[in-house]
Amino acid sequence: MSATVLNGLITEIAQGGIKMVDLTETLRPEYPTIQLPEEFKQALPFSAEVISKYDGDGPAWYWQNITLSEHTGTHFDAPCHWVTGKDLPNGSTDTLIVENMIAPVVVIDCSKEVAADKGFILTVEHLQKWEAEHGTIPAGCWVFLRSDWRKVADPDNYTNMQEDGAHSPGPDVAACRWMIEERDVLGFGCETVGTDAGQAFSFDPPYPHHYFFMGSGKYGLQCMTNLDQLPATGAVIISAPLKILNGSGSPLRVLALVPDRAQEPAQ
Amino acid sequence: MSATVLNGLITEIAQGGIKMVDLTETLRPEYPTIQLPEEFKQALPFSAEVISKYDGDGPAWYWQNITLSEHTGTHFDAPCHWVTGKDLPNGSTDTLIVENMIAPVVVIDCSKEVAADKGFILTVEHLQKWEAEHGTIPAGCWVFLRSDWRKVADPDNYTNMQEDGAHSPGPDVAACRWMIEERDVLGFGCETVGTDAGQAFSFDPPYPHHYFFMGSGKYGLQCMTNLDQLPATGAVIISAPLKILNGSGSPLRVLALVPDRAQEPAQ
Ligand SMILES: [Mn+2]
Ligand SMILES: [Mn+2]
Repeated sequence: MSATVLNGLITEIAQGGIKMVDLTETLRPEYPTIQLPEEFKQALPFSAEVISKYDGDGPAWYWQNITLSEHTGTHFDAPCHWVTGKDLPNGSTDTLIVENMIAPVVVIDCSKEVAADKGFILTVEHLQKWEAEHGTIPAGCWVFLRSDWRKVADPDNYTNMQEDGAHSPGPDVAACRWMIEERDVLGFGCETVGTDAGQAFSFDPPYPHHYFFMGSGKYGLQCMTNLDQLPATGAVIISAPLKILNGSGSPLRVLALVPDRAQEPAQ
Repeated sequence: MSATVLNGLITEIAQGGIKMVDLTETLRPEYPTIQLPEEFKQALPFSAEVISKYDGDGPAWYWQNITLSEHTGTHFDAPCHWVTGKDLPNGSTDTLIVENMIAPVVVIDCSKEVAADKGFILTVEHLQKWEAEHGTIPAGCWVFLRSDWRKVADPDNYTNMQEDGAHSPGPDVAACRWMIEERDVLGFGCETVGTDAGQAFSFDPPYPHHYFFMGSGKYGLQCMTNLDQLPATGAVIISAPLKILNGSGSPLRVLALVPDRAQEPAQ
């Protein structure tokens, strides 16, 4: 049976019955890295330096040294990223449960709401309205907030920073607790630079996604793209972080497997 | 059908019918990076610097900046890594065909040969003997050379460097050409620091894996571990490199999906 499933996976990918969608932004120097208030130390953006390029430093080969942070570009947040998750088992990139690196996803389309209000806050009411249409969110699955952020954000002010801080979408405290306590999801993902809303510094507690998800051994994915190519239910996410010793997170390639009958529920 | 396959994948992973095996070495400063003759520029080993750890630099969060090369730790070689593949389409980490990031694998167990001779050279004869026992190597699949290198190598001389250069296993020129021209494989992977044999600088052409595989738009994977946990046929490899702009390769998490009826052929 398991061999049949794996053969089916390879065959369906080859024949296009399962479409693969790359949810990853290209790692490049210009892609914005999260900016904290200046009293805190900052994460580095991506940079690359050529070691050799078919030249005297290496006649037949091209390669680069690279510098970045664990939270640069499309990346994964591990539980130990936040103080609430610091002592949990399987909480760093080198101790994660590998079986969680393949998991179903539900996609909450908030693109209209974000187009009308870039600081849109995801609430329990919104999640329950989604469930009324698409069914109960299954335990162990990713919840992705689709914002189409690349289309609505000002490229020169990608985090939408204003005088009173950033305005970008994210969940409120109750929505975070509901996803964990009522639905036992695997993690929460988005297209913006942080999983928490731009104004989440003012929530109680601040940064509720980080506070509650990391504190429950759950995950985050951010700086993704192409969420508009995913169905509401039925897709499967491959998210395998680098195995960094004691890593708090990791840039990674996030891939979605999308069945051709996209509306068929995952379970 | 495609939805059924994806549901089956999630169910079998949850129930243990499909076992996930992590083929990745932990990214850590001590893990050896390939060393070239000193006239060439070198790739950096992995290093990490704490940005904050629940302290004054970031009271609620822990994260690190990291530096490494595209070819540090368990990593992927893209076609543009070698001059023979420099102008091929889909040849860098940001232009790779994503469908190739999930592919079957055949595992050639050379652990006995390597235990007897650390510089063991894989030949066409050896591959044909493997086929006589396990069936024809299918097109589009990975070929992994299992050496159990971690068990046989001297930890203080991991590349097994001697006066006349390194002695570690790898394929000869004819084996590389045969895998490409007669079997059209996807790539070649191993547990040693390089896909080419330690003595491959003296082959004609030098470094035949790099020369022929990169020049044919095919791939390499190296510095893997746990290949002794894979069946000869029937497993599926997930190898999704970072999406580095013009990247020649990338550290990555390599995962294997192993069916419980391991001896059943993949096709
Ligand atoms: Mn992060
Ligand atoms: Mn390499």
